[in-house]
Amino acid sequence: MDIKAYMQQIGQQARTASRAMARADTNAKNQALNAMADAIDRDAAKLLAANEQDLANARAAGLDSAMLDRLSLNPKTVAAMAEGLRQIATLADPVGEITDMKFRPTGIQVGKMRVPLGVIGIIYEARPNVTADAAGLCLKSGNAAILRGGKEAILSNQAIAACVREGLSSAGLPEAAVQVIETTDRAAVGELITMQQYVDVIVPRGGKGLIERISAEARVPVIKHLDGVCHVYIDDEADPEKAIRVADNAKTQRYAPCNTMETLLVNENVAELILPPLAQIYRDKGVELRGCEATRAIISDALVATEEDWYAEYNAPILAIKVVSDLDQAIDHINTYGSQHTDAIITENYTKARRFLREVDSSSVIVNASTRFADGFEYGLGAEIGISTDKIHARGPVGLDGLTSQKWVVLGDGHVRV
Amino acid sequence: MDIKAYMQQIGQQARTASRAMARADTNAKNQALNAMADAIDRDAAKLLAANEQDLANARAAGLDSAMLDRLSLNPKTVAAMAEGLRQIATLADPVGEITDMKFRPTGIQVGKMRVPLGVIGIIYEARPNVTADAAGLCLKSGNAAILRGGKEAILSNQAIAACVREGLSSAGLPEAAVQVIETTDRAAVGELITMQQYVDVIVPRGGKGLIERISAEARVPVIKHLDGVCHVYIDDEADPEKAIRVADNAKTQRYAPCNTMETLLVNENVAELILPPLAQIYRDKGVELRGCEATRAIISDALVATEEDWYAEYNAPILAIKVVSDLDQAIDHINTYGSQHTDAIITENYTKARRFLREVDSSSVIVNASTRFADGFEYGLGAEIGISTDKIHARGPVGLDGLTSQKWVVLGDGHVRV
Repeated sequence: MDIKAYMQQIGQQARTASRAMARADTNAKNQALNAMADAIDRDAAKLLAANEQDLANARAAGLDSAMLDRLSLNPKTVAAMAEGLRQIATLADPVGEITDMKFRPTGIQVGKMRVPLGVIGIIYEARPNVTADAAGLCLKSGNAAILRGGKEAILSNQAIAACVREGLSSAGLPEAAVQVIETTDRAAVGELITMQQYVDVIVPRGGKGLIERISAEARVPVIKHLDGVCHVYIDDEADPEKAIRVADNAKTQRYAPCNTMETLLVNENVAELILPPLAQIYRDKGVELRGCEATRAIISDALVATEEDWYAEYNAPILAIKVVSDLDQAIDHINTYGSQHTDAIITENYTKARRFLREVDSSSVIVNASTRFADGFEYGLGAEIGISTDKIHARGPVGLDGLTSQKWVVLGDGHVRV
Repeated sequence: MDIKAYMQQIGQQARTASRAMARADTNAKNQALNAMADAIDRDAAKLLAANEQDLANARAAGLDSAMLDRLSLNPKTVAAMAEGLRQIATLADPVGEITDMKFRPTGIQVGKMRVPLGVIGIIYEARPNVTADAAGLCLKSGNAAILRGGKEAILSNQAIAACVREGLSSAGLPEAAVQVIETTDRAAVGELITMQQYVDVIVPRGGKGLIERISAEARVPVIKHLDGVCHVYIDDEADPEKAIRVADNAKTQRYAPCNTMETLLVNENVAELILPPLAQIYRDKGVELRGCEATRAIISDALVATEEDWYAEYNAPILAIKVVSDLDQAIDHINTYGSQHTDAIITENYTKARRFLREVDSSSVIVNASTRFADGFEYGLGAEIGISTDKIHARGPVGLDGLTSQKWVVLGDGHVRV
């Protein structure tokens, strides 16, 4: 197979389809989403059989149980895929929205129209549900999508892709609006991320290794999500009850997500009040604590935190704790060791809350609430394609709007420039 | 000189300064801008002397007259630089603006805060006025800037940089907020565009060759401005008087700018009515006409337009003309041969105007007005750092907002996720 020629063809088809998708009306897009969902429900047995074959191949190849777990579909996850598509159909269509139309002194009227980005390449690992999810988000935002899933999920992805194509076609939309790359050759990824003429943006979804590799080689812009080293800072003017509740939730509600707290910062004036009851909660839940010297003076069973701990994204029941002297030291710590993902302050002090919001350079800054809120559903985006730790284009949870851009609209009546 | 070490130091200093700039209050930033302007006015003679030396070196090196023209300062252009800085001081500060704070069902309140991008690298050719202009825009938007001008302008740029530093320092802002690279070694550019840890975005200002070279090698995101192949489409339901006025202005008001029309599309039903008087206007102004067959049947002295003409950005008194059968053919032509910069339709028909706005995928889409309006001043941005032909982050004229991003702000009262 000539991978370059194959990918060029995929790219050309996507570009052509993207023009039709940009013009597609809301009703056709919603109809396609609902038809995809219906096809997935109807073909559930087929999808599960394809997935069973992927799993058998993966077991034969010796994949570990975490990988197999991510790869595996069941009747409930298949139904959830369909339901996700129906939910995307209920979201407002971002495309074509015109805002800020203002008259200028020259008499022209100028504003902005929200438009699709064009062609979006999604690269992900062995989670077949991403196929349906990404297809739905790209479709609703008026884009064409090229999907490249992990090779372990190829049969599952192809079965899902058939449902997606059926949905597109039944609504009169081009089937090439969502293309799943049919080869597992890695060279296809190399082509995808460098076809600037056909691909407008790449969204990698997966582990940090995948994202770093893609970012290093891409010529197409990448919306990337690297580390989530999130902090909660408990100020000396925090309400202790809120502080303990939020610090507990931010760490223990779930350990794996990127918006889970990894380092707790506590003001030295309240460390002796806050840390003992909080440590007890963590101990009861089996969280390993690693602290600075001042922390260990209060929590005697905490392990020694090293410099690496302040940079660590554990994604596990481990927490680093540091006692700081004031807000400035907390902000310095976050801006030095953090990953500009999500950071929270717990305080009743207005000025310190305001400074934290302004001075912490992270994609989400939070006062008196858990870092776990930082996602597209909680923020009201309806769905998210990922969380961006980049600074340009989109920061934080990226929903339908993040898959669009704005062009300028000018209305005149024969106006010329003088 | 160890270029890598030098650039790393510049980068580190910029990163540190960017933190102070992000926090700087509006008053301090405006004070710095006005102080820079005052220093430039006061040091006008010094600036002109440095520029005279640059010009002498450039002449000795055999630079052509267009280059010398761009390089050259005079008392009027120096005063305009100072005035530009004072104007930036009058613009609203975009940084810290909080919008869309909405309550979610969980009780948290979620919105967005506008924040600087961080460190912006500006790479430009031998136009010394860009030094003041870019410094002012980056400063006002709360960013730190690293400026790399053409080597021919090095003495002029250093003299301007001294005024910029004086302004920053007098307002209590870090001098490293605006750094001018002191070496003319091209390796410095290679470092600048790959220092991802210190530089958040690159804005190249200059010819297409410069921008393509930088984009090809950059590891830092680039806000780029490539071609301006702009179209005016005269529909068969156009008001002929408005059509002729706009088509004249779009081509002849100035020939060099990127938003000047390069190809005129005329509906076949009105070609015989519109083209003869329009051709006479162009002839009188010395514009060379190149047409399709149908055009040449009406304008007998038009040269033959080849396939290359449809792609051409002349930046000169040359115009390509094509007769098209309908709106669809016009849109197809624009989306095929255009550069997604700025395109206009002249029509009195509501539905065709609406379709043109939606279906033409360009950074500015215009009804019944000249393409020449597509710039930051005309759009009310106050100033522009450039015009983006990219699709992500910013499209079209990029003003202060385009040098910022938005982070998420979450306010709670001890809220946790369940």
